[in-house]
Amino acid sequence: MSCDPPGMTKIAVLGTGDVGKAIASKLVSLGHEVRLGSRTDGNEASERWAADQGEGASVGTFADAAAFGEMVFLATSGVHTFTVAKGIVEEVGRKILVDVTNPLDFSQGFPPALSVCNKDSLAEQIQRALPEARVIKTLNTVHNSLMIAPRRISGDHQIFVSGNDADAKAEVSELLQTFGWRAHEILDLGDVTTARGTEMWLPLWVRLFAKFGTGDFNITLTRVDDAD
Amino acid sequence: MSCDPPGMTKIAVLGTGDVGKAIASKLVSLGHEVRLGSRTDGNEASERWAADQGEGASVGTFADAAAFGEMVFLATSGVHTFTVAKGIVEEVGRKILVDVTNPLDFSQGFPPALSVCNKDSLAEQIQRALPEARVIKTLNTVHNSLMIAPRRISGDHQIFVSGNDADAKAEVSELLQTFGWRAHEILDLGDVTTARGTEMWLPLWVRLFAKFGTGDFNITLTRVDDAD
Repeated sequence: MSCDPPGMTKIAVLGTGDVGKAIASKLVSLGHEVRLGSRTDGNEASERWAADQGEGASVGTFADAAAFGEMVFLATSGVHTFTVAKGIVEEVGRKILVDVTNPLDFSQGFPPALSVCNKDSLAEQIQRALPEARVIKTLNTVHNSLMIAPRRISGDHQIFVSGNDADAKAEVSELLQTFGWRAHEILDLGDVTTARGTEMWLPLWVRLFAKFGTGDFNITLTRVDDAD
Repeated sequence: MSCDPPGMTKIAVLGTGDVGKAIASKLVSLGHEVRLGSRTDGNEASERWAADQGEGASVGTFADAAAFGEMVFLATSGVHTFTVAKGIVEEVGRKILVDVTNPLDFSQGFPPALSVCNKDSLAEQIQRALPEARVIKTLNTVHNSLMIAPRRISGDHQIFVSGNDADAKAEVSELLQTFGWRAHEILDLGDVTTARGTEMWLPLWVRLFAKFGTGDFNITLTRVDDAD
């Protein structure tokens, strides 16, 4: 339960890269109190970000931010996500943990492989490490420039949501709508194991990214015209 | 070089399941001579298929069919594809080998996992086993009902092509257009390693199939409106 005015929430965003800053800035612009978490205290990139944002923005360590937020976004680079998640078990407790990361392994260069795939997913690893947390996988199928500004594509296009807790999925879907996602564009795939599907979309996404020379694209699911 | 009238080709389709029969029937309807290949001679399903099709349709073993065809489609179930491919090295030689299969592993039930993923693909395994063959991966991202009848979806939607040989990709793309695919819908992803991307799309596809209760869907790639 929040004591803030309706619609205002304390939210943590862990990760100070492009994805983390894009989501955090969007959340501040929507009137939320946002704490950007980084590995070390006094992270220069996050201090600069907070100064630019002004009111509503603060910074801290991953643990500080996770303790502050009523909802926690994981937006670190994929290779670090699991370690970061394991470090905030207490702070997260039963909160909603929104995992927008992908287990991309760039150790062999581009295109990256996945560091986990097929019979497991990063989201499931996180859910196992934080069994009380309500882990929701979403936004990981698009570039950060679309995550928080989906109407840069005028037509309908899809975003997926995976997780075990129906209420948490509904709450995250509402937040996604404040980002600009239309309710009918948000597809609930099912429990957290369905994150295998969206994480394994990345190997095609990165090849399309290479072909187009931009991440400014997404997929629209099209149905047969005479379908029910 | 073919001595048939222009546009008519001898084509082998290996695999007598729904996918193989759908492709083979479409090819017969387009005026090609088609030999449907199965594991054993005198396969009842393929005999029945040939009787239904009439002129232009014949049956044989995988090796018979692969020897007959100027182009060879691999349309077996994914678990058998590699074994079938290894058995027709001589018959295929430098021919175009169109791989429409997916390495789906149903041993743990539905949804299937992949039997190969991430740093390899079934298409690459086939290319390594048949180094002279011009392996083209395509059509594996959609249900067989759309492979050969893409205009059941009136709007644009995508099909992907992967392979090392540009001429072979152009030839297969032309054939796909006779199936109803529009030239601009056919996306050349690059060499055969890009098949990792389309094969790894399946774990999301099968979950969408479960959600929709039908395979009558595909993806349309949508670009940001102000993109170049």
